Amino acid sequence: MKTLCSVSTLARIFALSVLLALGQPAQAQTDPLPSWNDGPAKKAIVEFVQVTTTPGSTKFVPPAERIATFDQDGTLWVEHPMYSQVMYILESVPALVKAKPELAKVAPFSTVLEILKGDRAAIAKLTLPDLEKLAAATLTGMPVQTFEAEAKKWLAEAKDPRWKKPYTELTYLPMQEVLKYLRASGYKTWIVTGGGQDFVRQYSDKVYGIPPEQVIGTAGGTKYGYAKDGKPYLTKEPRLLLNDNNAGKPEGIHLMIGRRPTMAVGNSTGDQQMLEYTQAGDGARLAMLVLHDDARREYAYGPAQGLPATKVGAFTQALYDEAKKQGWTVISMKDDWKKIFTFE
Amino acid sequence: MKTLCSVSTLARIFALSVLLALGQPAQAQTDPLPSWNDGPAKKAIVEFVQVTTTPGSTKFVPPAERIATFDQDGTLWVEHPMYSQVMYILESVPALVKAKPELAKVAPFSTVLEILKGDRAAIAKLTLPDLEKLAAATLTGMPVQTFEAEAKKWLAEAKDPRWKKPYTELTYLPMQEVLKYLRASGYKTWIVTGGGQDFVRQYSDKVYGIPPEQVIGTAGGTKYGYAKDGKPYLTKEPRLLLNDNNAGKPEGIHLMIGRRPTMAVGNSTGDQQMLEYTQAGDGARLAMLVLHDDARREYAYGPAQGLPATKVGAFTQALYDEAKKQGWTVISMKDDWKKIFTFE
Repeated sequence: MKTLCSVSTLARIFALSVLLALGQPAQAQTDPLPSWNDGPAKKAIVEFVQVTTTPGSTKFVPPAERIATFDQDGTLWVEHPMYSQVMYILESVPALVKAKPELAKVAPFSTVLEILKGDRAAIAKLTLPDLEKLAAATLTGMPVQTFEAEAKKWLAEAKDPRWKKPYTELTYLPMQEVLKYLRASGYKTWIVTGGGQDFVRQYSDKVYGIPPEQVIGTAGGTKYGYAKDGKPYLTKEPRLLLNDNNAGKPEGIHLMIGRRPTMAVGNSTGDQQMLEYTQAGDGARLAMLVLHDDARREYAYGPAQGLPATKVGAFTQALYDEAKKQGWTVISMKDDWKKIFTFE
Repeated sequence: MKTLCSVSTLARIFALSVLLALGQPAQAQTDPLPSWNDGPAKKAIVEFVQVTTTPGSTKFVPPAERIATFDQDGTLWVEHPMYSQVMYILESVPALVKAKPELAKVAPFSTVLEILKGDRAAIAKLTLPDLEKLAAATLTGMPVQTFEAEAKKWLAEAKDPRWKKPYTELTYLPMQEVLKYLRASGYKTWIVTGGGQDFVRQYSDKVYGIPPEQVIGTAGGTKYGYAKDGKPYLTKEPRLLLNDNNAGKPEGIHLMIGRRPTMAVGNSTGDQQMLEYTQAGDGARLAMLVLHDDARREYAYGPAQGLPATKVGAFTQALYDEAKKQGWTVISMKDDWKKIFTFE
């Protein structure tokens, strides 16, 4: 009988079948950070994720320990000309004055009314104690649910002065890609912000994919009580529990997470301790700072711009030198980001 | 041609094949709570999980909102004759006195030394202010890492006075099954304890499958600083941020989670506000209390036993009446639990 196939032909058919079964040569991996230019920053992120998540790697990090913390203002979204939450505080003053008309002539409420009328120079009159007084007046004394509804309403309506968009659209697309890439690699992403915890929790899930329980911010106490119908509710109190700036960041991280981050990203002196604390751990750690050096597409403020530290926390020359000394990766918005905003 | 089968025979064979293809009558679903006797408590848990997780259910709870909070002492593990962390505090006094011998004659340290010598009556001498002083002395003033190592060491070596086992083995098997069942159903399980947050975080993952970031406890501030080699570290301060008992529980939940639980379990008056707060939400909510009514297998303390509230938080008659009024499920250890401890 004439055999259909010789052994060698069968062997070749078998081998070919195996190859076909194993599939095409691997497609080029989809770039998880398409808005990033090739460069040391992008490389640092991708390599960090790979070495910490590849089984057998000497720098493997067990999933439970994959914690990445992000400052928000100036790291995940725009913080100039002013923190959006400071705008919230200022824009909440008219309602306050409507309820208590005597405040209209009392500083700092009177100063704020001038600012809102267009007297931008009056901003310089506001001291830190003024801001604390305004924060206490506009962020505390009401039920939590009331605050949450007011914050949500303001966020839906307020527009930034430059691009005329809701603040929640001014997030940095390249950082959004980092958040998604980390989560897809088994990391938990946290926000660690000097901004108000209750405020940021109103949009963090929808805007960043970061749920309320993974937001650490400046936080005050609450007081438990009962409404007339017996239903319990919490009232925001002017009692500061955590000032989540500078050394407050590692303190807040210890309080709320109880683990040291493996990766931390910030942009100013207010993040220095968080980065130090992160890097002090064993094994692979990644610490990064976002440098605002792109006046055309965003804002330029940092040591190279020779701008003074005009707000709480800035990317000073000292911070830049510390970053170089400690091996923290500095991200240049100008060089590293192909696109900054989704809406460009 | 003689047909092998008539149409009716073929039909029967087809029908039989279909039945066989559909498989045997469904095996009884594996019982997720095998240590629970059938009864209203077990039923309440299973029904709650089913209605909140079955797509299409009118009481469906999206996975992100599936938060279940558990008191620890008396709910997840034994709390008699004394909270294990109080034992830790007392047993830490000798080391303190060794470092500062002058304390040996100073109350309450001298009282504790008497207690440890066997003078159990001396326990009654300790007031709440005494306990606070002892807590500050033994739980604060040291680096976080030092405290964590000391707590871990004590937990590994200490034995309870009745079963002579490590405290971490005195967890309630039926509650462990509830934790696992909830997590398998997409719930996140949290501990909300009056005990020290840093203390409980040393074993919560290994013992309960609850990671540090899902432990809320009584918590103090920390202070960031630098060691001689420049490495940063945190020191535990005697500055109370959160007293996680009574109204402190909803306050702690708001601070650390920022969501209302869908389910909460406690065992004493110290959990009342947490259960009220949980139940005040819309949709399906489950609030439960563990009643200690089994003197033979564990300890009996509660309204039916006529025992006075001898410790902070107890299952008083008032709490029992509140539970009935609010529709909270009372779990009877005697009737509902086939087995209490893994080691029985």
